[in-house]
Amino acid sequence: MKLTILGSSSALPTSGRYPSAHVLNAHERLFLIDCGEGTQMQLRKTRIRFAKINHIFISHLHGDHVFGLYGLLSTFSLMGRTNPIHLYAPENYDKILKSHLSDFDINLSFKIDFIPLSGKDPVEILDDKYLTVTSFPLQHRVPSYGFLFSEKIFERNIIKECIDKYKIPTVRIPAIKKGEDFITPDGTLIKNEDLTLPPPEPLSYAYCSDTKYFKRLASFVKEVSLLYHEATFDKSNQDLAKITGHSTTLDAAKTAVDAKVDTLIIGHFSARYKNISPLVDEARTLFPETYPAIDGKTYEVGNITDP
Amino acid sequence: MKLTILGSSSALPTSGRYPSAHVLNAHERLFLIDCGEGTQMQLRKTRIRFAKINHIFISHLHGDHVFGLYGLLSTFSLMGRTNPIHLYAPENYDKILKSHLSDFDINLSFKIDFIPLSGKDPVEILDDKYLTVTSFPLQHRVPSYGFLFSEKIFERNIIKECIDKYKIPTVRIPAIKKGEDFITPDGTLIKNEDLTLPPPEPLSYAYCSDTKYFKRLASFVKEVSLLYHEATFDKSNQDLAKITGHSTTLDAAKTAVDAKVDTLIIGHFSARYKNISPLVDEARTLFPETYPAIDGKTYEVGNITDP
Repeated sequence: MKLTILGSSSALPTSGRYPSAHVLNAHERLFLIDCGEGTQMQLRKTRIRFAKINHIFISHLHGDHVFGLYGLLSTFSLMGRTNPIHLYAPENYDKILKSHLSDFDINLSFKIDFIPLSGKDPVEILDDKYLTVTSFPLQHRVPSYGFLFSEKIFERNIIKECIDKYKIPTVRIPAIKKGEDFITPDGTLIKNEDLTLPPPEPLSYAYCSDTKYFKRLASFVKEVSLLYHEATFDKSNQDLAKITGHSTTLDAAKTAVDAKVDTLIIGHFSARYKNISPLVDEARTLFPETYPAIDGKTYEVGNITDP
Repeated sequence: MKLTILGSSSALPTSGRYPSAHVLNAHERLFLIDCGEGTQMQLRKTRIRFAKINHIFISHLHGDHVFGLYGLLSTFSLMGRTNPIHLYAPENYDKILKSHLSDFDINLSFKIDFIPLSGKDPVEILDDKYLTVTSFPLQHRVPSYGFLFSEKIFERNIIKECIDKYKIPTVRIPAIKKGEDFITPDGTLIKNEDLTLPPPEPLSYAYCSDTKYFKRLASFVKEVSLLYHEATFDKSNQDLAKITGHSTTLDAAKTAVDAKVDTLIIGHFSARYKNISPLVDEARTLFPETYPAIDGKTYEVGNITDP
C-alpha cells in the first residue's frame, strides 16, 4: 500500500500546498480520495496513471475537497474512457454533479456508478479481492465522512521446494495456502507450518477528512497502520478549530493515541502556517510517530520515516 | 500594459500547461480573463495580488475556461473581500454560478455585479479612466466571446521647465495638456507643441478565446498592439479544428495578418504537442511577429521579444 499526497492545504491553497486529494495504491488499484482543485494537474506531476483510477471517494461537499472533480471527469472523457467510475460521496451529490455537468455541456464517455454516503455508523462500501473499504461519519459543519481501507488477510505462502519434495499436486495447493496440512502418497502427515510461510500482516489506511475532535472517532480507525487526520490548526487555535469544525494538532494526535494506530500523517494545514514543522512537533508531544503531509510525496504504508 | 499567462493548455492540461487564464495589468488595474482550473494557484505562484482583481471576464462556458472560478471566489471570500467583483460572462451564467455556490454552502462576503455577454456585434462593456473594454462574438460550439482592451488616448505631457519659464498658472495646465496654446502675461503666444511632448501611443490587447476561423474576426481586433489567439492545432489538423470549432496556427496567423496587428501570441495548445516550437514556426511563415504563450510568463504589451 502506497499513499501519494496530491494536496495538503485547507480551503486556501498556497504556492506549495494544493487543496485536499490523496491517491492510495493498493495492489495496483488506485483509489482517489477527495478531489480538490488542481487534482488532475497534480496527477500529471506525480505521473500517476489516470486510467488506473476507478474509485473516487468524496468526504464532504466543501469546494476544497471537490472542485477538481469536474475537470478530472472531463479529462477522463476526453481521453476516451469507457470504464465506469465508482463515485462515493454524500447523498444528493449525484444530482448536483449531473446538473453541473449539463450546465457545462459535458457528456461523459463513461458511466458514473454513484454510491451515496449517509448514516451515523460505519458502513462497508466496497469489498474486492484484496481489500474492504468502510465509510464512517465525521463531525463537521456539513455531513462529512472518513474512509477506512483494510487489506484482507492474505493466504499463507507455500514454500516452493516443498512442492517437489512432497510431490504436492497442483489441485491441493489452494487448500494448503488456506492452512490445511498435507498427507504424502506414503501416508506421512506434513504439518501446514512446515509447508508454508505466514503471510504479511494486512495493512490498513484511514482517511479522516474535515472533522472536529470527538471521542468515538478512535473506535472507527482502531489500530490502523496509517491514519491520516486533518490538523488545520496548532493547539493555540483550539477555539477557532471548534467554531469551524476542525481539529488541532493535539486533537489529531489524541485520536491516534486512543486508536493505537501505528503512524499518523497530519495535513489540511491552514494557509497561516508557512512552516509546518512546529505543527508536527506539537503532535509528536502526544504521538511521536507523526509525519507531515507534503504535496507530491509518496508514503509507503507500514514504513514511513522522516525525509 | 503587461500580460501574464497563467494557463496555455486546451481542455487537457499537461504537467507544464494549465487551462486558460490570463491577467492583464493596465495601469495597475488587474483584469482576469478566463479562469481555468488552478487559476488561484497560478496567481500565488506568479505573486499577483488577489485584491487587485476587480474584473473577471469569462469567454465561454466550457470547463477549461471556468472551473477555477469557484475556488477563486471562495478564496476571495475567505480572505474577507468586500469589494464587488464585476463578472462578464455569457448570459445565464449568473444562474449557474448562484446555484453552484449554494450547492457548496458558499456565502460570498462580497457582491457579484454580473454583466451578461450576448449578441452578434461588438459591445462596449467597460469604460474607465484609462481604458475601454469591448466584447465581440467568436464562433465556437457554444456562444463564445473575445475581449478587446484599448487604452484611451493619453493627454500630452507638459514640459516642466516651461511652467516656470512662462509662469503658467496651475489652473491652465489641464487645458494645455489637452492641446491648447498659452498666451503669456505680456501677450506672447506659445504654441502647444513648444509646451508639451506627445503622449505615448495608446496600447491595446485583444483576447481571442476558443473560435474557428472566420473572416469578420479581423475587423474586431484591427491593428491591436497584441493579439492573443488560440491555436489548438497545427496546420495538418485543420479538419479536426473545423469539427471542434477551433483554430490552427495558420488560422491565428491569418487573422493577425488581416487585422494588421503588431504582435501575436498563440496558445490553448492541444496536449498532443509536447514541444510547441514547431507551432510557432508554422504561424511565423504567415506572421513573423508570433510568440508562444508560456505559463507563468509576463509579456510587456508593445515590447515582446523571444526569451
